[in-house]
Amino acid sequence: MKVGFLGFGEVASTLARGLLDQGVQILTCVEGRSSRTVDLAKSAGVELSQTPQEVAESSDIILSTVVPAQTVNVAKEVGKTVKGVYVDLNNVSPATVKKSLSYVVSGKTIDAAIMGGIKNGLKTPIIASGPDADIFAKLNQYGMNIDVIGQGIGQASALKMLRSAYTKGVSALLFETFYAAYRMDVDEFLLNYLSQTEGPLFQESAISRLKSSAFHAKRRAQEMDEVLEFLSDYEDPMMTRATCEFFHSLPLKTGTIKKKPANYRETFRKVDYKGK
Amino acid sequence: MKVGFLGFGEVASTLARGLLDQGVQILTCVEGRSSRTVDLAKSAGVELSQTPQEVAESSDIILSTVVPAQTVNVAKEVGKTVKGVYVDLNNVSPATVKKSLSYVVSGKTIDAAIMGGIKNGLKTPIIASGPDADIFAKLNQYGMNIDVIGQGIGQASALKMLRSAYTKGVSALLFETFYAAYRMDVDEFLLNYLSQTEGPLFQESAISRLKSSAFHAKRRAQEMDEVLEFLSDYEDPMMTRATCEFFHSLPLKTGTIKKKPANYRETFRKVDYKGK
Repeated sequence: MKVGFLGFGEVASTLARGLLDQGVQILTCVEGRSSRTVDLAKSAGVELSQTPQEVAESSDIILSTVVPAQTVNVAKEVGKTVKGVYVDLNNVSPATVKKSLSYVVSGKTIDAAIMGGIKNGLKTPIIASGPDADIFAKLNQYGMNIDVIGQGIGQASALKMLRSAYTKGVSALLFETFYAAYRMDVDEFLLNYLSQTEGPLFQESAISRLKSSAFHAKRRAQEMDEVLEFLSDYEDPMMTRATCEFFHSLPLKTGTIKKKPANYRETFRKVDYKGK
Repeated sequence: MKVGFLGFGEVASTLARGLLDQGVQILTCVEGRSSRTVDLAKSAGVELSQTPQEVAESSDIILSTVVPAQTVNVAKEVGKTVKGVYVDLNNVSPATVKKSLSYVVSGKTIDAAIMGGIKNGLKTPIIASGPDADIFAKLNQYGMNIDVIGQGIGQASALKMLRSAYTKGVSALLFETFYAAYRMDVDEFLLNYLSQTEGPLFQESAISRLKSSAFHAKRRAQEMDEVLEFLSDYEDPMMTRATCEFFHSLPLKTGTIKKKPANYRETFRKVDYKGK
């Protein structure tokens, strides 16, 4: 079994490492990518191709794991050379998935999405839909956790968009609320009181979201652009529009954050600094 | 011990019933109030006064539990006649609490707030602040659950506002996300997937919030007006502005909802109907 990745960030490198351990061959192309990406791929023991087309030609299953804005471009680039099945695993709307997959000439395409963070490694829940989704789900033999939810292209990405609307909205809400609490010096008080009613996972999850929001703001802003466009077909999504605006504006307030902060106050201090 | 209530809605009647059971005398004035309120008070065994001033004169501890918009008016009305301590238990901003309490001539005033729903009865967590907060906390002898968090007027209401920003924001976010999911017929799927990552309380809490949002929308819109004004002193509260807009617009979409719906889809169907 040969699995190819288009794009090699956190998601790809995590899955690649897990699959390599199970004896699956992994390939990707890192031409023109950052030295961090090249190092990630090399250290994981991934076979490096010269071009994305070469990856597409040589893989039984090819996974697109790029940034949302590159989803369509990368599909267009390799679409004619895909030999096996092409899985779009990006956080993009059903419309973007359909557009992207339309470039895959073979027509063997799958809509898929990661539900939750990639921190569970190879066991991270992934949902998939499309007539050929069962082929992708064969990777469950190698330890993956893929759940085929339907036969239509667009179903998996729709569910992912809805999930993102909620979880990214909560992250934005936490940041806004706790930043004000921090400025009043009652953030720990607030954390304690919310923990009493929001369940046993609240405290840890809130702190993790507060720490990652500014660090991942640019990527989330791109994802939220997709979510906003998608939900607008069904309603006037006021909360999602605000979430989108929040993640677009956050980097302007904090400046670029190169390292995940040790605690959430570190990020709040950057906002203070930039605000002055 | 005599405890008086200004306003006699859900919060007052719940606390009154609990305190009556503990042998505390309770009084309120229901002149000009709805027959539902009069019935609530009578059935609980509450002593009825002719005027709010009479309640203020005869109570050791007087609790203001009115709608946010009436907070200042009711304090102005009785301020000169308050004999004991005056507790503002309304969901209003620190600025509104301070304005309201400024009318209490005796100066024996307390800022207090209910943290979470009133469903825990007399044991519902209440926070209090102000130099005389300890007097209010004496009601813990009769089974109440009052936590004095500081000596300043404004501290309890600030924490309550911050809590509301988060919890009401989550409610709005849930409504928006699940309404779209309902229209795609994947709401149960979404509920299941979110439950996997959002903790064991998520499902029950989400359903409860989805059911109550439209039913309580008008009151929440008033509360969110206060929250928005308050947070605007510390930041540009994009998410809270959207939450505020959401609760103001919801009744226009659903029409008046007289009874709490049996399930959340019932509310969504009203949105569909009004939207057509």
